[in-house]
Amino acid sequence: MRIDEGWFSSSGAEDDVAVSSRVRLARNLFGFPFPPVMSKEEEEQVQREVTEAFEKLKYSFEAIYLDRLPPLERKILMEQNIISQDFCVSPNKLVLLSGDGRISAMVNEDDHLRLTCMRTGLCLQEIFAAVDELDSRLEGSLHFAASIEWGYLTSRLDNAGTGLRASVMLHMPALVTDDTIGWALKRINQMGLQIKGYWGDGDHSLGDMYQISNPLCIGYREKEILASVGEAARELVEYERKAREESTKSRRIELEDRVHRAFGVLKACRLISSKEAITLLSTVRLGIGLGMISELGIEVVTSLMIRAQKAHIQKMLDQMDDDTDNKLVDYTRAKLIRHALEGHVREDNNV
Amino acid sequence: MRIDEGWFSSSGAEDDVAVSSRVRLARNLFGFPFPPVMSKEEEEQVQREVTEAFEKLKYSFEAIYLDRLPPLERKILMEQNIISQDFCVSPNKLVLLSGDGRISAMVNEDDHLRLTCMRTGLCLQEIFAAVDELDSRLEGSLHFAASIEWGYLTSRLDNAGTGLRASVMLHMPALVTDDTIGWALKRINQMGLQIKGYWGDGDHSLGDMYQISNPLCIGYREKEILASVGEAARELVEYERKAREESTKSRRIELEDRVHRAFGVLKACRLISSKEAITLLSTVRLGIGLGMISELGIEVVTSLMIRAQKAHIQKMLDQMDDDTDNKLVDYTRAKLIRHALEGHVREDNNV
Repeated sequence: MRIDEGWFSSSGAEDDVAVSSRVRLARNLFGFPFPPVMSKEEEEQVQREVTEAFEKLKYSFEAIYLDRLPPLERKILMEQNIISQDFCVSPNKLVLLSGDGRISAMVNEDDHLRLTCMRTGLCLQEIFAAVDELDSRLEGSLHFAASIEWGYLTSRLDNAGTGLRASVMLHMPALVTDDTIGWALKRINQMGLQIKGYWGDGDHSLGDMYQISNPLCIGYREKEILASVGEAARELVEYERKAREESTKSRRIELEDRVHRAFGVLKACRLISSKEAITLLSTVRLGIGLGMISELGIEVVTSLMIRAQKAHIQKMLDQMDDDTDNKLVDYTRAKLIRHALEGHVREDNNV
Repeated sequence: MRIDEGWFSSSGAEDDVAVSSRVRLARNLFGFPFPPVMSKEEEEQVQREVTEAFEKLKYSFEAIYLDRLPPLERKILMEQNIISQDFCVSPNKLVLLSGDGRISAMVNEDDHLRLTCMRTGLCLQEIFAAVDELDSRLEGSLHFAASIEWGYLTSRLDNAGTGLRASVMLHMPALVTDDTIGWALKRINQMGLQIKGYWGDGDHSLGDMYQISNPLCIGYREKEILASVGEAARELVEYERKAREESTKSRRIELEDRVHRAFGVLKACRLISSKEAITLLSTVRLGIGLGMISELGIEVVTSLMIRAQKAHIQKMLDQMDDDTDNKLVDYTRAKLIRHALEGHVREDNNV
């Protein structure tokens, strides 16, 4: 497991607004109870069957048994959005992870198998194709529980049918600033989709990051789900771009001031909290999108938003427990960010 | 009159804490009423006599008739601390200014003649010597009002006797932060001296700048006044240095963070108010004093604290009236500061 690279370290389509896309398929093995009610022996048998099926694939996957992992490294997987919070703290869990960190499978989360593909940018079709191919290959060795009436059977009803959840993370600072974010969220809900702040509750989200997804996997075909989430995401991308255009028209200098101050502070600070780091990185991200900062790739910012989280910093410090001095974490976070931004800054950045 | 250079643009002794020293002599011509009660004709006659006396000197002085000066340029003289606020707005006033901007004479302020010398750093003896020599030379052509009992006669009693007011401007951020500034001010008052915030009232002063001076010119000899103000200033310099030492011991990283953030924002901002500029420059000044910023001379900061004031900025914009768009002033101030700091920053400043 690497802490400095992963699905988050490349650039992607429309990534001025669309930070990342994620597709997940829920599958269960025929003849086993669902994870919430299965015995330890059944859990281990499912792990064995899944592992064997993965070993037959042409891809190389790393099998990570969470019980054998230091708690800090589990948290890193959680911060990279590869495993869920519940999964992170449950005993006897297994995750399979592709070499590039983009494809992963949680074994015995709510379902026996949750296949996920994640990438930067807006690319639902592309990542669905990857996860769909994996699903088909696995079906060669695994017998997935399904019925003609219901489709794939899952532990929770809303995941049944396709088992497909498609989501897109969107960075919408201009809609937040011009106070139309509430309207935009409502519009997405009216389209039958769900949207929520990624770091925070309700209309406000730290770093102005919002995640849109389909609430139900059942009752729609896969391509309908991908199309509706994709179209809604594209609509939000356009709203946000329009709002950015308006604000650069009416308040260009104020915006440049905010962007360059955020960039200046990140390049200068010696102590920084996770919360402040995300807020300032969000502003720098906006500045890159608006062409106000040209010397920095947007993927550097996406990557820092993941890597500036606490467990990643503790791992850099090789501190294996939760008692790490917070000041040392804030100091190391500042150093990581400074160095990452400086490494991408051209020599003439002061002109 | 230059707006980018003056008494404030060089470095000086102990200037990590002692920003500048100032000495003023009040003199009046025999046979004329004091300025508050004199006629226009008498005012003009005093101006003539003083101008003629200055013309006989070996130094070159520029005679500046305020009535002939655009209001903006009067304000620049005020922002450079060369003329007082009352003098700035009164009709029919004259100021004589030396080429390097260090020595000046206000004619018909509260007294017929107020000779002033100002320099950066702690240097009361040196600047007194300069103004004392000028005074002696002028006495060759002007008959100053004096009595054996009172010494020099002045419009206000507290200026009589020596007519000497010595003052030192001190930068005391560490005493403000560790909350001992109140104690330090009280101690100075107990020594029979006066001290006040330079930009602000009471214990709090914008930019943590305080000015110490003698309250009375009468009852002491010149060298006693210089010694008491100089010793008190030196005592404050030591208190402040001690407080800085303590704070770098106990909170070095927090202090480095504050200093580098301030420097980072000043190098990055696109809009900045006068108040924020002074606050951040004060923190950068502290950082230079502590050796945390090594690429910048302290005189650059002293100079910017003068040059970032509103009239100086308006002059850069060639805007002659008070109606200048505040946003344009804030924008130009940010540009001035960025360029001034970048001009003094070594190429390796990002490392």
